[in-house]
Amino acid sequence: MKIVVIGASGTLGRAVSAELKTRHQVIEVGATHGDYHVDVTNLPSVERLFHEVGKVDAVVTTIGKLHFGPFQEMTADQFWIGLRDKLMGQVNVVLAAQHHVNDGGSFTLTSGIVGYEPIREGVNATTVNLALEGFVRGAAIELPRGLRINLVSPTVLAESMGVYGSYFRGFEPVTAQRAAQAYCRSVEGAQTGRVYHVGY
Amino acid sequence: MKIVVIGASGTLGRAVSAELKTRHQVIEVGATHGDYHVDVTNLPSVERLFHEVGKVDAVVTTIGKLHFGPFQEMTADQFWIGLRDKLMGQVNVVLAAQHHVNDGGSFTLTSGIVGYEPIREGVNATTVNLALEGFVRGAAIELPRGLRINLVSPTVLAESMGVYGSYFRGFEPVTAQRAAQAYCRSVEGAQTGRVYHVGY
Ligand SMILES: NC(=O)c1ccc[n+]([C@@H]2O[C@H](COP(=O)([O-])OP(=O)(O)OC[C@H]3O[C@@H](n4cnc5c(N)ncnc54)[C@H](OP(=O)(O)O)[C@@H]3O)[C@@H](O)[C@H]2O)c1
Ligand SMILES: NC(=O)c1ccc[n+]([C@@H]2O[C@H](COP(=O)([O-])OP(=O)(O)OC[C@H]3O[C@@H](n4cnc5c(N)ncnc54)[C@H](OP(=O)(O)O)[C@@H]3O)[C@@H](O)[C@H]2O)c1
Repeated sequence: MKIVVIGASGTLGRAVSAELKTRHQVIEVGATHGDYHVDVTNLPSVERLFHEVGKVDAVVTTIGKLHFGPFQEMTADQFWIGLRDKLMGQVNVVLAAQHHVNDGGSFTLTSGIVGYEPIREGVNATTVNLALEGFVRGAAIELPRGLRINLVSPTVLAESMGVYGSYFRGFEPVTAQRAAQAYCRSVEGAQTGRVYHVGY
Repeated sequence: MKIVVIGASGTLGRAVSAELKTRHQVIEVGATHGDYHVDVTNLPSVERLFHEVGKVDAVVTTIGKLHFGPFQEMTADQFWIGLRDKLMGQVNVVLAAQHHVNDGGSFTLTSGIVGYEPIREGVNATTVNLALEGFVRGAAIELPRGLRINLVSPTVLAESMGVYGSYFRGFEPVTAQRAAQAYCRSVEGAQTGRVYHVGY
């Protein structure tokens, strides 16, 4: 398969790309790293990417900024961060790429455990992660030509405990390599409209 | 209790307001109708509303525009409609009003069955309705002073079958009056972080 991984240079994306590369042709995309560059928050930029890349069999996104901070001081602008970046970034990819994925191909997006297990300062993350679940649920029944769409929702990654550990006391982290297996299940399997939880 | 109902002139809001009025003081708010006017998509407008209204015991929102249309032709701007209006409209209300609700008071927001049961042309609705569920789940654990927050998710209303019926063939509608009972459970009950499904 010819697979585009957007966010391939990230903590999660690196592992996903490495795993998929053992069996497939992977095109690595990022904001600043990779074979191609894109700004997923900008729909025309995503459209340009897929015009350059041409037809593909699968698109994986492992991107997405969120705002973490106390709810009592949160501003609307801070709340918009996750909507504009992690949510609309991935929505833009599907809106644009649906016309460039071969019959039976797939989308695999990324949410995270905070959608299910709320944490202090995490309301933007919980909102965005469940929004993505809704998006996948809604898009799955409308995509044509056997196109599939799934969501991977990992718990915190072992590689990220240095940065995010204080938010996730008592959570059992998983390695990015283990999370990458769920992306393979989505890309190489046959399901659609699914959420693959990893590590919880 | 002193209760603000935002969207009190709407199909759903009228019934919610009527039911709550039998036992409480209700302040009816809308974009163009009611005791006070507000534009929920504009945070400063919501802040002004609560400075005028003063302390309250409960805030109910029965507002929210969504975009319905085929996913294959959807633009990012169309997708933004539900995020800006139904999602951020209700988020803005909680961001602003959390500082004006008395100890132990509550927020009750509105989603809808399409979050759980996707329909054709409904991906924006499914996304926004689940985003609201995430928002309530996240905010419930951070709100101080015993403040509560819940979500009511009704199926299609009997009163709206004339307009939305073609999207909901085979769905059993409920009356707005029946849906209004779930708002009473949230406002007058003691739970938080709950989703009350009505009619499904
Ligand atoms: N890390 C965790 O523990 C964890 C756990 C669960 C879920 N997640 C979720 O997984 C996703 C990735 O997390 P991560 O920790 O791997 O992030 P990361 O290490 O910061 O990597 C982010 C990746 O996204 C790319 N990127 C950033 N902005 C972009 C834009 N506007 N357009 C295109 N690409 C862009 C970056 O590209 P460049 O390098 O080229 O700039 C990079 O490849 C996030 O949604 C996160 O919430 C993470
Ligand atoms: N109707 C259904 O079958 C059904 C079923 C499930 C869920 N829902 C959900 O319930 C909510 C209400 O639906 P509805 O059918 O009752 O809507 P509706 O009849 O169109 O009423 C909308 C209400 O919102 C107010 N409003 C509109 N824009 C506003 C803004 N920017 N700021 C403040 N107020 C604003 C309107 O005020 P003015 O009149 O003053 O302009 C009106 O009171 C929506 O989220 C909808 O998705 C509806």
